[in-house]
Amino acid sequence: METVSTARAHGGTQGVYRHRSSATGTDMTFSVYVPDHAPGATLPVVWYLSGLTCTHANVTDKGEFRRACAEHKLIFVAPDTSPRGDDVPDEEAWDFAKGAGFYVDATEAPWATHYRMWSYVTAELPALIGEHFPADMARQSIMGHSMGGHGALTVALRHPGRFRAVSAFAPIVAPTQVPWGKALDRYLGDDAAAKRRHDAVALIEDGARVPEILIDQGDADSFLAGQLRPELLATACADAGIDLTLRMQPGYDHSYHFISTFMADQLAWHAARLRA
Amino acid sequence: METVSTARAHGGTQGVYRHRSSATGTDMTFSVYVPDHAPGATLPVVWYLSGLTCTHANVTDKGEFRRACAEHKLIFVAPDTSPRGDDVPDEEAWDFAKGAGFYVDATEAPWATHYRMWSYVTAELPALIGEHFPADMARQSIMGHSMGGHGALTVALRHPGRFRAVSAFAPIVAPTQVPWGKALDRYLGDDAAAKRRHDAVALIEDGARVPEILIDQGDADSFLAGQLRPELLATACADAGIDLTLRMQPGYDHSYHFISTFMADQLAWHAARLRA
Repeated sequence: METVSTARAHGGTQGVYRHRSSATGTDMTFSVYVPDHAPGATLPVVWYLSGLTCTHANVTDKGEFRRACAEHKLIFVAPDTSPRGDDVPDEEAWDFAKGAGFYVDATEAPWATHYRMWSYVTAELPALIGEHFPADMARQSIMGHSMGGHGALTVALRHPGRFRAVSAFAPIVAPTQVPWGKALDRYLGDDAAAKRRHDAVALIEDGARVPEILIDQGDADSFLAGQLRPELLATACADAGIDLTLRMQPGYDHSYHFISTFMADQLAWHAARLRA
Repeated sequence: METVSTARAHGGTQGVYRHRSSATGTDMTFSVYVPDHAPGATLPVVWYLSGLTCTHANVTDKGEFRRACAEHKLIFVAPDTSPRGDDVPDEEAWDFAKGAGFYVDATEAPWATHYRMWSYVTAELPALIGEHFPADMARQSIMGHSMGGHGALTVALRHPGRFRAVSAFAPIVAPTQVPWGKALDRYLGDDAAAKRRHDAVALIEDGARVPEILIDQGDADSFLAGQLRPELLATACADAGIDLTLRMQPGYDHSYHFISTFMADQLAWHAARLRA
């Protein structure tokens, strides 16, 4: 693992790191914020999965998470959203291929070789974080934005007991029912069961459970009605007995202006569960 | 004045605007954050002048000022750092010409035509802000970073009574004594008196006064010893009876990681004076 940069910020260290990923077969870059802590201490880990077009840098620059992470003594990990590099197949679209890995292990050519973000964020990167950072891997939580909200929800639903909290900003909750879900068709082909395993609403319908979910959603989000459809998650959670808190935020859009506004509150919610 | 974008953020509106500047003879872009407020109310205005290479966007993306501005009900204005456009003379250097206007009205060719940032930030833009925003222009304060700290200090020292507070992050305090000051030589030529009017330490030596100054400075800032030299300001303030609070911040560098860490605290300091 190579250190790209570190800087002192809000009483901790904001780092950017690069490593060779065996999951994706590419170099991968990610950021980690570590608050100051006593020698030998370990801190809970919050995973943040980013949305379409993003790298680790968007939330690292604009997420306004460091003050709250320092206050609550939380490590904050932000992976990239896809494999990168000249030998990674790509398309012109902003909502498919690079910057749009959708947190799946692709099975269809030509994507299957490198687009293995599921394995990357659920196995390879957690092992790396546990090895190189003062992380208490028994206390993890996960959040994400949009496509990364989809990632956070599906990762949490499929790893019962691993995460003490799961939340999202404007998540895609039912990709198999919305246009962005065409990415799953291309990564996963005709395997309907595989696609249901990457759809939070379908996972809940099929029996997956977390105790509770927190979601903030701007009501001026231009993707709300067409792509996000939180009402589908609300119905699934109600039917399944999952305690969903869905906060519609008046006037907020889909941007980091929205995310940064509610970041500290979501982190406080995570901290209460990570330190319970 | 044209609205480039607006977004709801931290209980207010973050806008980006463009207008034709008569000072610079170019289009100029700036950002303004306005917290929610009662109809008809006006709010104090904090000016933020940015550093070398920056536009309005750097602090707008990474400054983490909105939460504190919303809490204290402060309007936050971030101008660009130079004229822009294909007909504006430029050089390859990152510390001169575009992105490096140094908040002066240039008198030397070919810079004198467009590089008139002093007039822009002290006269033209304040008039525009007063006209188009719910700004209480009787309650203004000013801050800045690096070259923008130089701008904030010199603007405040030369407009006694206009600003109720002045502070800076890692400011250039004595450009005529450091390498970056070569920009003044090129913008202002051989006029030593003009250059002293754009040098905070020289202004204080020559009798300019503000009641107090707050500065945060990282001690791991790579520009500290060669370009910033806050000890020169400390000496000038001590000799002049100006109440300087110079906070050396251990481990912090020159970046927005440093600025964002201390932004809320500086804004609280401004708010106490703006609302006194």
